[in-house]
Amino acid sequence: MHKKRNPLKTSPLNKHTILVMSPDMQGLIFKISSILFESHLNIEKNDEFVDKDQNMFFMRTEVSGDLQYDTLLQKLKSILPQNSQIQIIPQTKKSIIIFCTKENHCLGDLLLRYESKELDVNIKAVISNYADLGDLVRKFGIHFVHISHSDITREKHEELILQECAKYEVDYLVLAKYMRILSPNFVQKFEQKIINIHHSFLPAFIGANPYKQAFERGVKIIGATAHFVNNHLDEGPIIAQDVININHTYTWKDMQKAGRDIEKIVFAKAIDLALQNRIFVYGNKTVVF
Amino acid sequence: MHKKRNPLKTSPLNKHTILVMSPDMQGLIFKISSILFESHLNIEKNDEFVDKDQNMFFMRTEVSGDLQYDTLLQKLKSILPQNSQIQIIPQTKKSIIIFCTKENHCLGDLLLRYESKELDVNIKAVISNYADLGDLVRKFGIHFVHISHSDITREKHEELILQECAKYEVDYLVLAKYMRILSPNFVQKFEQKIINIHHSFLPAFIGANPYKQAFERGVKIIGATAHFVNNHLDEGPIIAQDVININHTYTWKDMQKAGRDIEKIVFAKAIDLALQNRIFVYGNKTVVF
Amino acid sequence: MHKKRNPLKTSPLNKHTILVMSPDMQGLIFKISSILFESHLNIEKNDEFVDKDQNMFFMRTEVSGDLQYDTLLQKLKSILPQNSQIQIIPQTKKSIIIFCTKENHCLGDLLLRYESKELDVNIKAVISNYADLGDLVRKFGIHFVHISHSDITREKHEELILQECAKYEVDYLVLAKYMRILSPNFVQKFEQKIINIHHSFLPAFIGANPYKQAFERGVKIIGATAHFVNNHLDEGPIIAQDVININHTYTWKDMQKAGRDIEKIVFAKAIDLALQNRIFVYGNKTVVF
Amino acid sequence: MHKKRNPLKTSPLNKHTILVMSPDMQGLIFKISSILFESHLNIEKNDEFVDKDQNMFFMRTEVSGDLQYDTLLQKLKSILPQNSQIQIIPQTKKSIIIFCTKENHCLGDLLLRYESKELDVNIKAVISNYADLGDLVRKFGIHFVHISHSDITREKHEELILQECAKYEVDYLVLAKYMRILSPNFVQKFEQKIINIHHSFLPAFIGANPYKQAFERGVKIIGATAHFVNNHLDEGPIIAQDVININHTYTWKDMQKAGRDIEKIVFAKAIDLALQNRIFVYGNKTVVF
Repeated sequence: MHKKRNPLKTSPLNKHTILVMSPDMQGLIFKISSILFESHLNIEKNDEFVDKDQNMFFMRTEVSGDLQYDTLLQKLKSILPQNSQIQIIPQTKKSIIIFCTKENHCLGDLLLRYESKELDVNIKAVISNYADLGDLVRKFGIHFVHISHSDITREKHEELILQECAKYEVDYLVLAKYMRILSPNFVQKFEQKIINIHHSFLPAFIGANPYKQAFERGVKIIGATAHFVNNHLDEGPIIAQDVININHTYTWKDMQKAGRDIEKIVFAKAIDLALQNRIFVYGNKTVVF
Repeated sequence: MHKKRNPLKTSPLNKHTILVMSPDMQGLIFKISSILFESHLNIEKNDEFVDKDQNMFFMRTEVSGDLQYDTLLQKLKSILPQNSQIQIIPQTKKSIIIFCTKENHCLGDLLLRYESKELDVNIKAVISNYADLGDLVRKFGIHFVHISHSDITREKHEELILQECAKYEVDYLVLAKYMRILSPNFVQKFEQKIINIHHSFLPAFIGANPYKQAFERGVKIIGATAHFVNNHLDEGPIIAQDVININHTYTWKDMQKAGRDIEKIVFAKAIDLALQNRIFVYGNKTVVF
Repeated sequence: MHKKRNPLKTSPLNKHTILVMSPDMQGLIFKISSILFESHLNIEKNDEFVDKDQNMFFMRTEVSGDLQYDTLLQKLKSILPQNSQIQIIPQTKKSIIIFCTKENHCLGDLLLRYESKELDVNIKAVISNYADLGDLVRKFGIHFVHISHSDITREKHEELILQECAKYEVDYLVLAKYMRILSPNFVQKFEQKIINIHHSFLPAFIGANPYKQAFERGVKIIGATAHFVNNHLDEGPIIAQDVININHTYTWKDMQKAGRDIEKIVFAKAIDLALQNRIFVYGNKTVVF
Repeated sequence: MHKKRNPLKTSPLNKHTILVMSPDMQGLIFKISSILFESHLNIEKNDEFVDKDQNMFFMRTEVSGDLQYDTLLQKLKSILPQNSQIQIIPQTKKSIIIFCTKENHCLGDLLLRYESKELDVNIKAVISNYADLGDLVRKFGIHFVHISHSDITREKHEELILQECAKYEVDYLVLAKYMRILSPNFVQKFEQKIINIHHSFLPAFIGANPYKQAFERGVKIIGATAHFVNNHLDEGPIIAQDVININHTYTWKDMQKAGRDIEKIVFAKAIDLALQNRIFVYGNKTVVF
């Protein structure tokens, strides 16, 4: 999986998204846009940002027109600093695998958005360490794989999951309330490719039972955070966050119930941003256009 | 300061707020309301809450009528468990001392609300460890006291502040971006009487420079928290919180600028709640009616 | 439908909710709570509110214990003004019929909450003027009824719907993006029993295509409103509202997509409040506890 | 007033903001950025947007470097369609006149931001139809002009105000809760130069007493809207909006009190955006970068 996309596979609408992350220098916008202009590509949408703190330049451009992948990449490389990252991505449908455990709200929300085509994605499979959500997934005609973690080591469990993942070519693994911590070994195989939803306003309440933690602390607002997974628990780059007001009448069960609504919304939003190639990751942060 | 309010000092409108915090038991609302009824007091507003987790009962009642303080207190005591806390508070104007350092937004906002009588309070003095905000305070005809912390020990500095505070009878000390940590010795003298505004969504980003911390972490939302001060830094009972959305274009200076708006709003709101006797503190939490 | 609940049908947990709406007068809380006390009912949760403007008293009390419906009703009547409204409602599962047209997000969200038992309700049927959502509904094992409006008069169409509704005993009809205006004749049969979700922040953008209206007006925030249906289009009593920020980059299609998220959340919240007997309607307003 | 800024008056930091609003065509970003590049100007910040609906292109660029106003303007004109609008604005401090009536919160908030230099602006004068806020304004050393509307016609009153305004060269008139409707004659003199704060979430509750209207309608959220003034009451292009949750316990006075907090924040934000040249107006809408 995560094989390089075939550059010959052009998008049906002849649309591409070009992502450039580069050390900043004078004239970048001019130089890049001049290459796009002389390549007869029309700019449909353009965003740039310069992080003055890190002296980094970010540019995301949606273009239409007859794009020659190799030629364009070569031209862009010729005018950008050597340590720049350039991506030219056809606007084709992406693929994901969903991981879940027992809670249906984030998973179900994705399935509904998938069915209504609001979320333009192929769901290759849903993998779960419990069988509970199989019925729901099958309702939507999607392949459900139950890989129990009981009676086997964590290593063995992840090995089985990896074997399953290897069957599909996908762009992202999305953890729809998957209540297992992934090992560093697993995570490094999918760098910036695993999106998790954590049920707190990170960095508050890292780890287990954030609603119980929130209840104990007596906060007046609770939140949810979608982030890329790295090897530090709940510390990966944040993609999106949202919050809701609560008050003293909320038990932690009430918080859990109320929290589900923002969890699923934030999670779906983060996945949508990823599918649209709108996220840059650098250091432990994101630039989201 | 913090002398018991004189029970004979009735409010001009003959209005009182009764606060009861008690272990829960059957019939409390009936028993309390029957005493109020037979005392010919009219209930203007009533709120109750039972914390099932702690088995605690909270009741806040605004009454009008000819209230006999000692008699009523005695009657309420007679029907409530011994470890109950009962407060009968006349609706008279409360008094505060404001602490500040160099930033004018929380202080200035309070001064404006004071001048327009939106905030129904006496500001006895403004104490600062810097002279910078003296001009602003004096514009509003309020006593400004500069007590510098330079060249003296923390103990000495707090001693000078305590001496100044001792000159006034006040209900709350409010820390309008007072950038000094108060010692346990100081704090214990004003239990549940010091209201602070912290410029983060606690418990995220405790301590110094929360906006820098937030910038480093790459969060997509920042917040402000008003809380009572206890002896654990930024860990006192939370009164009110609010947040605003930010994105990757915000430097920490931008966050600081944007954050000021929620800091001052949350801070004023928390003070207003305190002045209206709408906050119960128990354990490390608040019940806010 | 809407037959009076059988007072003999006690809830399994022996829990009831008592709703009192009455002209305000002194001693109401005392009088009501004394009846509850002498009836050996335990107050689990209690909320009151007095609308000073209308001189109306509202009280919602959750009680547990061996409740004698007729006796209690009689006692409450005896101490309340004659034009008071008293409801004693067992905490049993309520029933609804869902109406929809072609959009799946509000409907699907309800189905998921139903399946996970987050929404404690019986869905008796889903009625639609189009066949599109039949597959989705049947996935969840719920009866789907397609009643097309083509080639028949509005009167005839509603007659057919009424015939279908008459087959079930339900508490609420909920309009999950049902894109037909119900006639006064229909509405009056279900007073305060029809909950609609309107895709704008009412009273802004009443009527058709609110997102197009919002786009034309150039607003920076869009909203959704759940309300009871009355005979004035989009002017019934508001139950819940929510909003999200947008900006100039949003086409009305983008607004529609973003708006779906708040529509479904607000709609589910309103239904949940209704199912929990937490809404009073008076005049054109609601009191929501 | 509103004389063209002297193009020779360069900003102290040699920074300028270039605003281009033009019919969209291929290559605009390339053409504009090539001119900036060959003029040796460094792009500090760049934003573009294309309104596909109107086929309009918007670009805002902050540049640093030795800018030759006439030359640059000529070059830009040569590559842009004839009906394009080009502005080259030095980053110098702008000037405003504040209008107010009796409420101090929006005015006072601006004065505090002015004093702390958070708002980088010259306040040339504060004009009011009542004398009430004179003391507050003078505290901050700003010229207060009381122009009473009593005993004179609306025309005469506006004539007096115009005479006062004519004494200063200013960029914006900001209406800090100025409770008089300005005549078409007045408004046309300051097209897109008058910023008003309306105390509702427009287009809901246009006109007088929006909080009373909101109370009558029973909404669950109230809002505030900053907008440019045109000749249709409360219908000018919207710059910024914000909302807060309320509930049935709010009287319209409570709404008014709560609303003040968002009014002043939204108003200051809109003014800040204007001072930073971040707003394009077209049709009845804004593009805000």
